[in-house]
Amino acid sequence: MSDDIGRPNLVLVRHGQSQWNLENRFTGWIDVDLTEQGVAEAHSAGGQIREAGIEFDAAWTSVLQRAIHTLWIILDEIEAPWLTVARDWRLNERHYGALQGLNKAETAAQHGDEQVHIWRRSYDIPPPPLDIDHPDHPRFDRRYRYAPGDALPAAESLKLTLERVLPWWESAAAPALRDGQRLLVAAHGNSIRAIVKHLESISDEEITGLNIPTGMPLAYTLDQGLQVVERGYLAGERAAAEAAAAVAAQGRATR
Amino acid sequence: MSDDIGRPNLVLVRHGQSQWNLENRFTGWIDVDLTEQGVAEAHSAGGQIREAGIEFDAAWTSVLQRAIHTLWIILDEIEAPWLTVARDWRLNERHYGALQGLNKAETAAQHGDEQVHIWRRSYDIPPPPLDIDHPDHPRFDRRYRYAPGDALPAAESLKLTLERVLPWWESAAAPALRDGQRLLVAAHGNSIRAIVKHLESISDEEITGLNIPTGMPLAYTLDQGLQVVERGYLAGERAAAEAAAAVAAQGRATR
Repeated sequence: MSDDIGRPNLVLVRHGQSQWNLENRFTGWIDVDLTEQGVAEAHSAGGQIREAGIEFDAAWTSVLQRAIHTLWIILDEIEAPWLTVARDWRLNERHYGALQGLNKAETAAQHGDEQVHIWRRSYDIPPPPLDIDHPDHPRFDRRYRYAPGDALPAAESLKLTLERVLPWWESAAAPALRDGQRLLVAAHGNSIRAIVKHLESISDEEITGLNIPTGMPLAYTLDQGLQVVERGYLAGERAAAEAAAAVAAQGRATR
Repeated sequence: MSDDIGRPNLVLVRHGQSQWNLENRFTGWIDVDLTEQGVAEAHSAGGQIREAGIEFDAAWTSVLQRAIHTLWIILDEIEAPWLTVARDWRLNERHYGALQGLNKAETAAQHGDEQVHIWRRSYDIPPPPLDIDHPDHPRFDRRYRYAPGDALPAAESLKLTLERVLPWWESAAAPALRDGQRLLVAAHGNSIRAIVKHLESISDEEITGLNIPTGMPLAYTLDQGLQVVERGYLAGERAAAEAAAAVAAQGRATR
């Protein structure tokens, strides 16, 4: 572990490229898998953690395979496939409602560029919801059968995403961290934004412009009160900033 | 799901070939990975479960990567990587004590053929224990840090293996099954023997001669009282018996 990041007890990793990132489609809760590049990004993330010598007591991920597979690859890279792993739908990507499956051109044709920009960049304006009877609605998916029925979204703004990630943080991550556990979280751009916003007290305005780079472990050292003592990307701030800019430029905020 | 096996609520899968099975070494708790053949066996097991149309509510495995990787491959094959997975060291393979790492020839040279046969085939005679300060002793391994100190074995007979698997069954599997959950278990020859012996009331004498074939899902339909209503290998009894005989003939009871 490099000296400048202390002894992290929380590491966040955003999954790498998925098939629909590649095709520039709104993905949200659609369960597409990683591409070869996404797999390589996961190996890279795992290698960075291994080289930093960080150990964990438990790992968390979403119920979407692009995050789960990222976690599995990291666990193999750090030689800890035996680590306790919990999955929680509240770590899922933002639900993109009726936009899910559409590519940028299709969305612009249906709704206009300006409207699409608002949905992507506003803090609290959700896209049009999936119809309650649409086959992609989460209520038809076995993996959500234990979620409270009224909790399952049909479309989310970034604000709504944060509002369902935070109960996970408070009920699962925070007690474990206070108990001295070191946690690894493999998740998605917007669920990781939720955690980062909470930890670093980022404003509603600022968070919409914050891009999390993919495959780049973000390490936090939190004190007993869960205040940030240190934070930093294992690859260094410059490499992370360049990667985040590349993500933003490629319009991959849809992942 | 084929009609003759009812609607299983418990499926057991023994992992396939590992590197040390291939080299005919006593493996036990040494954390060797699957060979290519072992990976193929896991895909085959997953394919059988998928074709049988069996669904699960949770999965269990050991803390050894040859079982964990088998489970991951199965979860991908049945398109359910999101399934809740719990790991428990009590599902580990029998601990082979000071024999771990030795091949058949080395063991025979050190201890004599007859003694080795006794260790492999007796019900209640454990092999010589690992020294308490041996680097392979589980007390030095992070994955066992939450296990009660006096519970960690340095060598196990089949009887001792059963005695630590059964508390897992009673405290984890049985309550879940009574609660209506359907469970998938990916584990090892001897931890699966423990479960099978318990469910089918097999005698101490008989169990030492029972070989579980690798990569062949064994499906149980249990009633509310956890009595066996039906049981059967998804591949059919004949294919399973042939595979089990092959395992026995190859002297791979060491896995």
